[in-house]
Amino acid sequence: MAQATIGDTGDSTSVSEFDRDTALTPRGDGVYEANLSSGWTIFGAVNGGFLAALLGRALGDALPHPDPYSLTAHYLSASRPGPAVIRTQTIRTGRTLSVGQASLYQFDEDGNEVERLRALATYGDLGTLPDDVRTTAKPPNLPPYERCLSRRDGDAPLGTEFEGRLDLRLDPATCGWAVGSPSGLGEMRGWFGLADGRDADPLSLLLAVDALPPTALELGLKGWVPTIELTTHIRCRPAPGPLRVAMTTRNLAGGLMEVDAEIWDSADRLAAQARQLARPKMG
Amino acid sequence: MAQATIGDTGDSTSVSEFDRDTALTPRGDGVYEANLSSGWTIFGAVNGGFLAALLGRALGDALPHPDPYSLTAHYLSASRPGPAVIRTQTIRTGRTLSVGQASLYQFDEDGNEVERLRALATYGDLGTLPDDVRTTAKPPNLPPYERCLSRRDGDAPLGTEFEGRLDLRLDPATCGWAVGSPSGLGEMRGWFGLADGRDADPLSLLLAVDALPPTALELGLKGWVPTIELTTHIRCRPAPGPLRVAMTTRNLAGGLMEVDAEIWDSADRLAAQARQLARPKMG
Repeated sequence: MAQATIGDTGDSTSVSEFDRDTALTPRGDGVYEANLSSGWTIFGAVNGGFLAALLGRALGDALPHPDPYSLTAHYLSASRPGPAVIRTQTIRTGRTLSVGQASLYQFDEDGNEVERLRALATYGDLGTLPDDVRTTAKPPNLPPYERCLSRRDGDAPLGTEFEGRLDLRLDPATCGWAVGSPSGLGEMRGWFGLADGRDADPLSLLLAVDALPPTALELGLKGWVPTIELTTHIRCRPAPGPLRVAMTTRNLAGGLMEVDAEIWDSADRLAAQARQLARPKMG
Repeated sequence: MAQATIGDTGDSTSVSEFDRDTALTPRGDGVYEANLSSGWTIFGAVNGGFLAALLGRALGDALPHPDPYSLTAHYLSASRPGPAVIRTQTIRTGRTLSVGQASLYQFDEDGNEVERLRALATYGDLGTLPDDVRTTAKPPNLPPYERCLSRRDGDAPLGTEFEGRLDLRLDPATCGWAVGSPSGLGEMRGWFGLADGRDADPLSLLLAVDALPPTALELGLKGWVPTIELTTHIRCRPAPGPLRVAMTTRNLAGGLMEVDAEIWDSADRLAAQARQLARPKMG
């Protein structure tokens, strides 16, 4: 018997890869089943932004408000392709804001639940916010889409399955790492879209803040950069069209680094701000 | 009978106001009792950074690692002076990192618990981190301590009890609001210390990221600026001496704003980075 799902229209010919792979089956009492696809993995582990989006979808269903205003995830252990269960808790509901918690679990060989990440989030309805903007923030200085580098250009491929789901075009100024000449600056910039052309929305922004190659590459580090914690603020529903993403690390110290991400939409609005604390392999 | 407490040496003549007021009485199973002093309130509500420090102290006791690396708090309802209970949960413990959750509750007139804020945090031991620093971040451009303005200068008093616990010296360049000429830029900078001279530590950094007058004042807004969510990264144990704090709001849009905070210690290290999402009263 077909299961009702959330985030999947049921018409498999038109559903985007992102919506298909973040689709959830509700089990009642704020519990959802998911199946982690191998398509969003990097060296076998599911991308942290994708996992945040998965919890974001569950909370958007469990809470009375649809949109994540602020979502923080702490990463406990690497998530692998396969079945998962998400448990949500509604902490507080108000007129304009609600707060919830969500955890994603997978299973060890004995079938015991192992927690992979836990999130705390405040939700609202971005559609109800006033139009006022008083900003001093400026969009990143990024060459036009067609002058940026895709993985097909062979200049900057990481060779992960994850890359195939994205339409990333990286600023050549932040691709020195791909030819053995990292700039030494912790900057990574590019255009972000989903490979199948799905338009951006608040959930895909949760992915996009963690989707570019790591800034650590431009600092001359080559290894894996596990995320300890990732917080994303979603500030508006993004306009259609490719997003501009700028990631910056200013302080690599004591073996830890912050990674700031800004996402600008085609209407020149700062659609998301994110920061993560990460622990790069030093090498 | 005297209660064992955490964060208070028991010698009331030498204990700092901050340590006395964040002292906790353990009740077992990760539960702690606290008493919220009126000294850290702004217009009757306890400061959000102070509350984060209180949960930070509880988690530092409950978890096997002493220092918050990243702590996120979501604020549910205003905390008032009086008794409170903190419930912690240990989510994961590893060799170098542990993850925990904490909630602070107060009581309604019927004695029912009302949750005030919930935090999720990753802890480690800052003393074990290597000394490497590769940073492009620069300390804020701040006049010397003696050329900055204290509340006693009459230029920039907010008249809150909270101010009396702090030794704040604000950059005159960010005090236009106090004389009716806000700059229009969302910047606030100053020197931060505790009024009784207590040295900074990771817990007081959790306070310091939310202790300056709001950046909204320099944007010409006059009301209260409730915090929705506050995330702080603690990057090192701060050196003794006054701290330099720079707070910046770049994007006020849709009635919401981010507030970024950086704290630099006397050894010119970036000791903390924080960001909050806040909802200023627009007026």
